[in-house]
Amino acid sequence: MSLYDSSFPQMARMLGQVLVWLDKAEAYAQQKKFDPEVLLNVRLAPDQWPFRRQIQTLVHWPVRLGALLTGEEPSARESPEEETIAELRARIGKTLEQVKALKPEQLKGAEERTIPLFFLPGKGMNATDFVFQFALPNFYFHATTAYSILRHNGIDVGKADFIGSLDLRDM
Amino acid sequence: MSLYDSSFPQMARMLGQVLVWLDKAEAYAQQKKFDPEVLLNVRLAPDQWPFRRQIQTLVHWPVRLGALLTGEEPSARESPEEETIAELRARIGKTLEQVKALKPEQLKGAEERTIPLFFLPGKGMNATDFVFQFALPNFYFHATTAYSILRHNGIDVGKADFIGSLDLRDM
Repeated sequence: MSLYDSSFPQMARMLGQVLVWLDKAEAYAQQKKFDPEVLLNVRLAPDQWPFRRQIQTLVHWPVRLGALLTGEEPSARESPEEETIAELRARIGKTLEQVKALKPEQLKGAEERTIPLFFLPGKGMNATDFVFQFALPNFYFHATTAYSILRHNGIDVGKADFIGSLDLRDM
Repeated sequence: MSLYDSSFPQMARMLGQVLVWLDKAEAYAQQKKFDPEVLLNVRLAPDQWPFRRQIQTLVHWPVRLGALLTGEEPSARESPEEETIAELRARIGKTLEQVKALKPEQLKGAEERTIPLFFLPGKGMNATDFVFQFALPNFYFHATTAYSILRHNGIDVGKADFIGSLDLRDM
């Protein structure tokens, strides 16, 4: 097991599920005759990021983590406030390609790195701690919050849409 | 890195944060003069589990995963509908003790196991896939949903309360 195995395949799997949630959101908007883009500005609390930014942050995580674990400077997260559902879908597609292009070999030795924390100058974390204590909890936090915003607004997403398909075996 | 390292320390860390959320929920209830137990039945959607059951499920995950990875029969999840905040706190304390008692050595060879899926008779998953595709996503799903229910109801929980303290290093 490696840092690669413990993060990228599952992050890609979750991003694939976001496309399913967007399908359901658009179908619901059509059925109820409202503009699906309205959902992009919905929040569960007034001081919380809206759906659009939850997705933007979620989609940026695998790219950012790939850069940090290979020692590159991570690109800044773009969060345009006018981004549409179609543009979010394209962003997900692009990230999925980037994850596919990242080879496990590129992360060899990543466990030995110290990852700098942009919000705590002069401080960093061991790469393994960074993945398990910070990257994955943040990733799932934004995934679940985005899902919850849709569910709270009547979209018929369920746990199976969150988890997605599983690699099964016969017992 | 092992299946133990990739799940139990972080699950315990998250359960410790739930106690912080409950502190904030009780303080807010006192300030606004409402019964904090009311929060236990709150949901973000009418067909979703309420806060109490989100926490019950979350707290049961480390116990269930510990049993599955060591080849024991997992105990059924108890979800009493009258469980109070004080009882949930006690349940968290008990689970934290169980996680502490589980030694990494007990999980040696766990990667080779096939974990049966109770909702798909005759089907199972490789233990590593089970942890990354099913156990951790479910765990974070219930953690974030519980957090979101509180946040949606005015409790001043923020991302730092979700993530908790980090193992930092000087750069």
